[in-house]
Amino acid sequence: MINKLVANIKKTGAPIVVGLDPMLSYVPEQVVKKAFGEFGETLEGAAEAIWQFNKEIVDKTYDLIPAVKPQIAMYEQFGLPGLGAFQKTVDYCKRKGLVVIGDIKRGDIGSTSAAYAAGHLGRVQVGSRFYAPFDEDMITVNPYMGSDCINPFAEVCKREKKGLFILVKTSNPSSGEFQDRLIDGKPLYELVGGKVAEWGEDCMGEEYSYIGAVVGATYPEQGKLLRKIMPKAYILVPGYGAQGGKGKDLAHFFNKDGLGAIVNSSRGIIAAYKQEAYAKYGAEHFGDASRAAVEDMIADIKGAL
Amino acid sequence: MINKLVANIKKTGAPIVVGLDPMLSYVPEQVVKKAFGEFGETLEGAAEAIWQFNKEIVDKTYDLIPAVKPQIAMYEQFGLPGLGAFQKTVDYCKRKGLVVIGDIKRGDIGSTSAAYAAGHLGRVQVGSRFYAPFDEDMITVNPYMGSDCINPFAEVCKREKKGLFILVKTSNPSSGEFQDRLIDGKPLYELVGGKVAEWGEDCMGEEYSYIGAVVGATYPEQGKLLRKIMPKAYILVPGYGAQGGKGKDLAHFFNKDGLGAIVNSSRGIIAAYKQEAYAKYGAEHFGDASRAAVEDMIADIKGAL
Repeated sequence: MINKLVANIKKTGAPIVVGLDPMLSYVPEQVVKKAFGEFGETLEGAAEAIWQFNKEIVDKTYDLIPAVKPQIAMYEQFGLPGLGAFQKTVDYCKRKGLVVIGDIKRGDIGSTSAAYAAGHLGRVQVGSRFYAPFDEDMITVNPYMGSDCINPFAEVCKREKKGLFILVKTSNPSSGEFQDRLIDGKPLYELVGGKVAEWGEDCMGEEYSYIGAVVGATYPEQGKLLRKIMPKAYILVPGYGAQGGKGKDLAHFFNKDGLGAIVNSSRGIIAAYKQEAYAKYGAEHFGDASRAAVEDMIADIKGAL
Repeated sequence: MINKLVANIKKTGAPIVVGLDPMLSYVPEQVVKKAFGEFGETLEGAAEAIWQFNKEIVDKTYDLIPAVKPQIAMYEQFGLPGLGAFQKTVDYCKRKGLVVIGDIKRGDIGSTSAAYAAGHLGRVQVGSRFYAPFDEDMITVNPYMGSDCINPFAEVCKREKKGLFILVKTSNPSSGEFQDRLIDGKPLYELVGGKVAEWGEDCMGEEYSYIGAVVGATYPEQGKLLRKIMPKAYILVPGYGAQGGKGKDLAHFFNKDGLGAIVNSSRGIIAAYKQEAYAKYGAEHFGDASRAAVEDMIADIKGAL
C-alpha cells in the first residue's frame, strides 16, 4: 500500500491528505436538514449527515489528491451508526482510487493489537470464512507499549501489503510533556523514531517502508531531525493549517526526491466554506470551496519544496 | 463512578475485575453452533456467539464481583456487529449493577479526545438532543500525547462522574522499551505516574480520584513505587493469571486500607473451563467453571493481602 501511496502522490503531484474529520458543526445546514428529515435528530441522522458531507467533499476533490485520513473518533462519537458512516466513507474512498489512512491510534498488548490489526487492516476468521471488517489501507498506531504492541500490526502489513504510521512527535501543544524528555541525552521521540526505522527495515515496499511515522507540522526542527533518523519511513504530517503549521515549515519533512512526507489538513479543507477566503462559494457549494482549498494547499506546499 | 467502584469492592470483598475479552476460540462449541445456526458464519454470527458467551459468564459471576472490563478490540475485530455486541455487553453489565471499565486505550489531540470522551463516557449532541452512545462507566486512556490529550477525558469525568485508568506501566514484555527509560534518573513510567497523581487531584471522589492508572501485575516492584507516587489513584492491574502475575506479587499495589487496586483476569476466568483445574465442569457448564475460577482468584488475592 505504501507503493500505491507513492504512485498516487507522483500521479497527482500532491503530497497531501485530506482529513475527513467531520464535526456536525461543519456540515452545512441543507445537508443536516435533509439527514434529520429522513432519520430525525438521532445518531442515524448525524451519521447520514456526515456521510453525505464526506461524499460531496470526496466527489469534488478525489482527482486532485492521493489519500484521505478519516479520524475514527469523529464517527465513533455517534456510536454504531457513526461507525457505519466511517465504514461507508472508507469503502467509497477506496472505490475512488484513494489510499485510506484510518486515523485510529490503536495499540495494546500483543493478542489485542492482533485483534485491532485483523479488524482494521486484515481479515478475521469466523468459522470457515474470512471477513475484512473495516479494511483501511493504512492506520495510525500508538507506540507507548513497545515492540510487542507494534509487531502484530507489522505482521498484518507484510501479509496484506498494508501500512502503519506510528506516533513519534505529535502536533499538539503538550506533545513535549513526555515525547521531548531526554533519555541518554536524546528526546523520547528520537528513540521512538529510531525504533520506527528499525521496525520498518523488515517491511520494505519499493522505495519506502510499510511502516511510517506521525510527526506534527508544528514541530519543523524535530521533523528535520526525524527525517534523517528514519530515511525510509513515510512521514504523515498533521497540524498544517488550522493547527498552525505552514508550507514553509514543511520542506525538511521531505527527502531530496520530493517524496517521504504527506501533509494532512482536515478543518482547513473540509470546512473551507466557513473561511473568509472561500466564503464566496457559500454553504451551498461547500464541496467547491474544499476543492479550491485543496488547490491552494498544494500550491503552498509545492512552493515550499 | 470511582465511589461506586469502591462501594462494589467493599460489598463483594473482591478487588477484582473480570476481563470480558472473548476470542471465538474461547466460546464453547454449543454456543458457536447455535449462533451460526441463526446468523451463519458471518460477523453477526460471531457477534451473537461472543454476546451469549459473555451473558452466561456475567449471569454466573455478577454477584461475586464489582466490575467487568470488556476489551473493545475483541469486539471491534468483528466490525459493526462486534461493536453491537460490545454495546449490549456494556448495557447488560450495568443493569446487573457492575461497574463497566471499557478497555479502549484511546487518546488523541484535544478535539479528538473530546469526541472519544463524548462517545464512550459522556453524551454527544445531535440537533437539540443528546445521546450516550457507548456509555461505559470508566475507560482506559493512553498518555503518550500528554495533558491536552487527557484533559477532555478528565472534564467529562468531572461532569458525568465517570472515571479513567491511564496507562502508566503496562503488563506486556516490551513495556520497558520506552516506559522504563530513564529521564533525569527516573523511568518514564514514574514521570507518567506523577502526572496521573497531578491530573487526579482535580477530580477527587470520596476516598479516591476519578483518575486512576494501569500498572501490570507482571511488574510488582514498579507497582510498589507507583502506589506511593499516586496514593489517591485506583490502580487497574492487568496481567494476573494467564500473563504470569500471581496473588503474592500484588500486595504492594494496594493501600493499607486494603483498597486502591483492582486486579483483572480475562482468559483465566472466561476460558476457565479449558483449564485442567476446572475441566470437570465441561464446556457445557463453562459459566460454572468461570464462577469457580472467580472464587479461587478472590481467595488467592485475599490470601496475599
